[in-house]
Amino acid sequence: MSRVVKLAVIPGDGIGREVIAEAERVLDAVTAGSEVTFEKTPFSLGADRYLATGDTLTDEDLDAIRAHDAILLGAVGGTPGDERLKDANIERGLLLKLRFELDHYVNLRPSKLFPGASGPLADPGEIDFVVVREGTEGPYVGNGGAIRKGTPHEVANETSVNTAFGVERVVRYAFDLAERRRQKLTLVHKTNVLVHAGAIWKRIVDQVASEHPDVSVDYLHVDAATIFLVTDPARFDVIVTDNLFGDILTDLAGAVTGGIGLAASGNINPDGAFPSMFEPVHGSAPDIAGQQKADPTAAILSVALLLDHLGLHDEAARVQRAVEADIASRDGARTTVETGDAIIARLQA
Amino acid sequence: MSRVVKLAVIPGDGIGREVIAEAERVLDAVTAGSEVTFEKTPFSLGADRYLATGDTLTDEDLDAIRAHDAILLGAVGGTPGDERLKDANIERGLLLKLRFELDHYVNLRPSKLFPGASGPLADPGEIDFVVVREGTEGPYVGNGGAIRKGTPHEVANETSVNTAFGVERVVRYAFDLAERRRQKLTLVHKTNVLVHAGAIWKRIVDQVASEHPDVSVDYLHVDAATIFLVTDPARFDVIVTDNLFGDILTDLAGAVTGGIGLAASGNINPDGAFPSMFEPVHGSAPDIAGQQKADPTAAILSVALLLDHLGLHDEAARVQRAVEADIASRDGARTTVETGDAIIARLQA
Ligand SMILES: CC(C)[C@H](C(=O)O)[C@@H](O)C(=O)O
Ligand SMILES: CC(C)[C@H](C(=O)O)[C@@H](O)C(=O)O
Repeated sequence: MSRVVKLAVIPGDGIGREVIAEAERVLDAVTAGSEVTFEKTPFSLGADRYLATGDTLTDEDLDAIRAHDAILLGAVGGTPGDERLKDANIERGLLLKLRFELDHYVNLRPSKLFPGASGPLADPGEIDFVVVREGTEGPYVGNGGAIRKGTPHEVANETSVNTAFGVERVVRYAFDLAERRRQKLTLVHKTNVLVHAGAIWKRIVDQVASEHPDVSVDYLHVDAATIFLVTDPARFDVIVTDNLFGDILTDLAGAVTGGIGLAASGNINPDGAFPSMFEPVHGSAPDIAGQQKADPTAAILSVALLLDHLGLHDEAARVQRAVEADIASRDGARTTVETGDAIIARLQA
Repeated sequence: MSRVVKLAVIPGDGIGREVIAEAERVLDAVTAGSEVTFEKTPFSLGADRYLATGDTLTDEDLDAIRAHDAILLGAVGGTPGDERLKDANIERGLLLKLRFELDHYVNLRPSKLFPGASGPLADPGEIDFVVVREGTEGPYVGNGGAIRKGTPHEVANETSVNTAFGVERVVRYAFDLAERRRQKLTLVHKTNVLVHAGAIWKRIVDQVASEHPDVSVDYLHVDAATIFLVTDPARFDVIVTDNLFGDILTDLAGAVTGGIGLAASGNINPDGAFPSMFEPVHGSAPDIAGQQKADPTAAILSVALLLDHLGLHDEAARVQRAVEADIASRDGARTTVETGDAIIARLQA
């Protein structure tokens, strides 16, 4: 029974294009000769498109993307300080707009210290956890504004919006994931200070916890969580947290597991109402773009998450194993393409 | 010319009492025979006081504290999960109330990897920076609320409030500090996402920067800043940031410089309108309280910050040197009192 998956591909800016090229090659390699075919549509979106046309993400773009089964994204964003981008906010207008419009309420970010990978910690222990970051609300909603802007009397407010609907669905996802892993869930927030936002998270985690007696539940303030990420990251299994804390924790987690060149992520709509989107955690790194210096591993691991999400578990496992085997034997600098080649060679071995 | 300093001492809960006992002994030792006398008034505040009386911080407490020249605080907070504290929020009702009521708009948190101290990083480099954390606004204001509380339709909002007045004064303090240090200032925020709060910080830093052509100014998103804190902490000199990001960064910074057992802080009202407050960054750690296991170094380094703030620079430098000498020669476990003894011995050598 053959299956066609319609995949929207958004290479984006900077190194996004280089790493997505390798991710696509890996995807082709792992599905070659199988019953599933990926029908890929490239979308030119990002800072370069904005500079060329003035558009960030049009309604037509969004409609076209929506008509796909899934999305593979590289990275978006121009050179910091580029005057021509002064009024553009590619992150909000493109990346966050996709996450919000496509209701990607689970931002799934696995953190694993692969054998052979080395991070900044002297004695990291076994790191293997997943951050389930809420993706559609919290401090990321963009609600707020300023009065008396630009004057000495300016007041600028930024509001975090947290709904029972939004918190509960992501918390449920996290508990289900914990059930399938090591049955440990840590809520990270700052309930002692952010009393309003914190209370709803705490209440809902407590409530859903009562339906999961097998899962041991822990709570950490975000500041303490960053300490444990560098002193005892092995303690974590599943972390569930809000959009902003998840952003911070996953960059730090990426660093301690060998750098964000290895960190993959999925922006998932578990209901299947909209296509989910898979992307490396890293940015577009314009400073090294076009030089074949970028590590495509995070993009390739994002392909594994994509395959898993589509139910192609064997293919996902093959990509994952190929990457792990490659990481275990890396030494010396390689170009982006060379890393792609090496992983494809493992896949075909 | 003799001078009397009226010092309010709030040992607080848990290990707060043990570490403050050592801090007081060091203060006595460094001022013995000098022209300055510290007149100390102990205040019984914290979870234990709340459990005994139901009070957190009364107006009378606050008035009495206000009548002092400075405050030394240990740590406050009861045992997590203690049902009797369910409705108390000691952090907001006591610690944050002091910071807000006494207009501690500069939360000063130096991070230094002392020779002999070891943290979790394999190759930390020379770490020596100061975080200037805003202390009286941002996401810490407590503004917000919930509707339909406890129902599936709950919406809980939490608003970060940022004023030009509040941001400018702390940014000016940070630039002045950078002038006296290595002339490097890094603003940490999340301007691409928190566009309203981010814009006011960015605008004011740019504006004050133009008055400090000698200071090189850098900007990092908070997520990227956590990466650099573990991969290249030597790059930082002065970090200026908001209340919440400062909270997160300084716990992480404490961890990478050998643990928050060494991290001191000052809650400063630079205008001198209210007494400034000095406290270790660590919490009350009820799990090890009363066992003489706590490291009093952070509390003792907070005494050095206190002395500096009062213009007693020689005394401050002596405490600092004694601590550094002690850290350089530590080995094996010591009791809280033994560490106090060792530092006092260095001081008197
Ligand atoms: C680029 C930015 C908007 C984004 C975020 O903050 O979510 C990025 O940091 C990430 O973690 O995917
Ligand atoms: C206890 C808590 C309110 C406090 C804070 O968040 O400021 C603490 O974490 C700190 O950093 O001093």
